Amino acid sequence: MFSDTLSDGFRYARQVQFGETDMAGIVHFSWMYRYMEEAEHALWRAAGMHIARFGEETSWPRLSASFDFKNPLYFEDEFEVVVKIDAVSRRTIRYACTIVRGDTTIGTGVMTTVHVRKGPPLKAIEIPEEIVRKLTEASQK
Amino acid sequence: MFSDTLSDGFRYARQVQFGETDMAGIVHFSWMYRYMEEAEHALWRAAGMHIARFGEETSWPRLSASFDFKNPLYFEDEFEVVVKIDAVSRRTIRYACTIVRGDTTIGTGVMTTVHVRKGPPLKAIEIPEEIVRKLTEASQK
Amino acid sequence: MFSDTLSDGFRYARQVQFGETDMAGIVHFSWMYRYMEEAEHALWRAAGMHIARFGEETSWPRLSASFDFKNPLYFEDEFEVVVKIDAVSRRTIRYACTIVRGDTTIGTGVMTTVHVRKGPPLKAIEIPEEIVRKLTEASQK
Amino acid sequence: MFSDTLSDGFRYARQVQFGETDMAGIVHFSWMYRYMEEAEHALWRAAGMHIARFGEETSWPRLSASFDFKNPLYFEDEFEVVVKIDAVSRRTIRYACTIVRGDTTIGTGVMTTVHVRKGPPLKAIEIPEEIVRKLTEASQK
Repeated sequence: MFSDTLSDGFRYARQVQFGETDMAGIVHFSWMYRYMEEAEHALWRAAGMHIARFGEETSWPRLSASFDFKNPLYFEDEFEVVVKIDAVSRRTIRYACTIVRGDTTIGTGVMTTVHVRKGPPLKAIEIPEEIVRKLTEASQK
Repeated sequence: MFSDTLSDGFRYARQVQFGETDMAGIVHFSWMYRYMEEAEHALWRAAGMHIARFGEETSWPRLSASFDFKNPLYFEDEFEVVVKIDAVSRRTIRYACTIVRGDTTIGTGVMTTVHVRKGPPLKAIEIPEEIVRKLTEASQK
Repeated sequence: MFSDTLSDGFRYARQVQFGETDMAGIVHFSWMYRYMEEAEHALWRAAGMHIARFGEETSWPRLSASFDFKNPLYFEDEFEVVVKIDAVSRRTIRYACTIVRGDTTIGTGVMTTVHVRKGPPLKAIEIPEEIVRKLTEASQK
Repeated sequence: MFSDTLSDGFRYARQVQFGETDMAGIVHFSWMYRYMEEAEHALWRAAGMHIARFGEETSWPRLSASFDFKNPLYFEDEFEVVVKIDAVSRRTIRYACTIVRGDTTIGTGVMTTVHVRKGPPLKAIEIPEEIVRKLTEASQK
């Protein structure tokens, strides 16, 4: 594993949709994980790649995902997910994310994904070096 | 904080719905957080309480939520969420969850919630002692 | 097409989860379509069948789905979806649904599904007679 | 009611997210209703208004929503929702939507919303004339 502390991070802009709120009047907490994933996939596209293709034999399931909530998001809030390549091993990529609305930090999260051959059962496989290089470059712009 | 290692945990049974799967053929990872929340709220009901009421002034947003994924869930899988009161402070409750399908562990997660007066802004408030007592009792059955 | 007006309908019981509500304090309207689908799939199981299997070559996408909303659903409401086989053609099945909470009608909906070979592109195929017979029987209990 | 056949419609651009697909490899049908709603709310913003505000006393629940599915959407597909003001009554607005991906029609839908004072119970109220005028103008650009 190496830490990629130099990366500025890739920025993904988004606006809160009505169906993402709950009866407490704020965004339901489960959406933060979806926002992080949307940013991850946008980073792949910015790197000229696609994390999934219809009918493909490989996939990138989660090993873990966590989020610390600092401030709530409200309907129509415009926010950004800043996603960095946080660490890499032979078969896994760890992304570190910060969600911000202007100067306000909404929260921070970490997701670790593993490269697998689809199952059942899923089988972890090596990550081509080129993928890590492209993602790191795209997240430093 | 105290750890409640004696609790067997409250068991919440559930079946995977089609709309919870994704194109990788397995349950989308964001659903694990919803499954944990469903179990938490079922525990509240088992304790004779309701975590939310229409028009109420207080709420229980997340401070943090994490999940470690061990095995995937598939469409129509029957599984259980075992939820325990893991730790309690004056204003927070931490739940520890294990999701199992028969003898297979799907994953383990932790959620910390804080008692607040609804905002904006949200303001943390004390948890009535009775709530903790009832939840602990209901999760030991 | 024939109308199956004699069918009492298959009853699927459900409780509203917190993550299904929105900031208006009621269940987000998009969930009614998911509730109808859950009931449809429970009917298939009651008929001893599974509407989908991992890796299968055929599928049942929607041709149309509509819902008329009479009364809102709230958090923790217990409700039932009553689903009937409403009409059948060589390649399609139409389900008629009523969602009720006790004596209150939440709304009524209709979904038409088509049997296809997965694509791309999707290709409509004939429905085995046995499937219709089993579903009709299971929805008359 | 009057039909607004002259309106070109307001165009809302969107890309399919991974979490919106299901195990059949296509966008889960329930998302079409959310896409229509996102377009409706974007139209309100284009008209200089907001369909909902935190803590507001009024709301716009659905009376009905239907969708006819012509072609499936896949992960990362870029598509547009074209939304028109289709009909207006004293307390309701009907939107007609077409979802397109390039030259391919994904489907067409209709949503009728009613202006209400929040409950329980919900109570239908008149729509200010200015709202209809602004929406009609914004959807003709």
